[in-house]
Amino acid sequence: MASVTGPEIDRLIQLLARLPGLGPRSARRAALHLIKKREALMTPLAGALQVAIDKIRVCETCGNIDTRSPCTVCTDARRDPSIIVVVADVADLWALERAGASSGLYHVLGGTLSPLDGVGPQDLTIDALVSRAHDPRVTEIVLALNATVDGQTTAHYITDLIGDANVRVTRLAHGVPVGGELDYLDEGTLSAAMRQRTLF
Amino acid sequence: MASVTGPEIDRLIQLLARLPGLGPRSARRAALHLIKKREALMTPLAGALQVAIDKIRVCETCGNIDTRSPCTVCTDARRDPSIIVVVADVADLWALERAGASSGLYHVLGGTLSPLDGVGPQDLTIDALVSRAHDPRVTEIVLALNATVDGQTTAHYITDLIGDANVRVTRLAHGVPVGGELDYLDEGTLSAAMRQRTLF
Repeated sequence: MASVTGPEIDRLIQLLARLPGLGPRSARRAALHLIKKREALMTPLAGALQVAIDKIRVCETCGNIDTRSPCTVCTDARRDPSIIVVVADVADLWALERAGASSGLYHVLGGTLSPLDGVGPQDLTIDALVSRAHDPRVTEIVLALNATVDGQTTAHYITDLIGDANVRVTRLAHGVPVGGELDYLDEGTLSAAMRQRTLF
Repeated sequence: MASVTGPEIDRLIQLLARLPGLGPRSARRAALHLIKKREALMTPLAGALQVAIDKIRVCETCGNIDTRSPCTVCTDARRDPSIIVVVADVADLWALERAGASSGLYHVLGGTLSPLDGVGPQDLTIDALVSRAHDPRVTEIVLALNATVDGQTTAHYITDLIGDANVRVTRLAHGVPVGGELDYLDEGTLSAAMRQRTLF
């Protein structure tokens, strides 16, 4: 294949194949699509990447990514500085923001504790979170972590560490997803939804 | 979401979502992955795209894409100029080359005839193919088109057009895929494989 496509296209395909969601086959299709749409897509994408390379940085306060640090969320005066929502990843922050789920600030851990994958406390921004928890303005830490073993291990670890801070530590409710059918839900979720039932 | 990610990241996500195989959700994941791997992936990808923008062109002879025109295939003296393999798309050319299926030259149509999608003969490089079929060096035209209605319509249309050229027009064999199980094959393929059976 190298003899036909040449090193330039091979290199483009290899780099595209390293994006999550694209395998070797779809990377070839993507490369071909880009080359066919040179003006409409390839040139704007190269430009957008260069802008991102030049401008995007990690917020030194919360770990969000933005064109400025502290980020737009951290500097937004309309947000409630008494609540810090702890997420594993920036993608989770985006998901909560799309849902308009919180008006508080955020703290991005950069992952979850995972002994099997060699991820320990020093690999996450837990120290910074502990400092923020001791800020007198902060009254609540919401642990918005995945309902997985790693997520819950991380939640317990953080809860222990900030036990001496004067804050309420909460976590997301378990329950039936909106639009979800009971028949398809696992027993753990159903039991939790029943335990945490609310007045109609 | 715009308030959190900012226009630069939004634009990157929008452009990534236009790649085949990436939807809005996977484009967000891809953008985040790129931003996290700024040095290892985002910078090289921006560079590879710029190289492709600057260097890649369409071969004026066969329609292949390459850094030069005529392309590497068309100018390779080891290839057999008496055979022209007609494909709908550059991806098909790449697939045949990966398989090492032919030592002939190629002709990329740029699609298949599709009245429903408004694709007529003038949208494809059929005129150029007819000219090449009249080249006295050419003795065989292999129609390597998809075994779909559109592919076969295109094959018939081309066969009619180049009937007066002194060439043999052939097409790919139908049959059992290598490694395929008979039980899963459709009746048309099985019948064709039986009709075109070969000596063991």
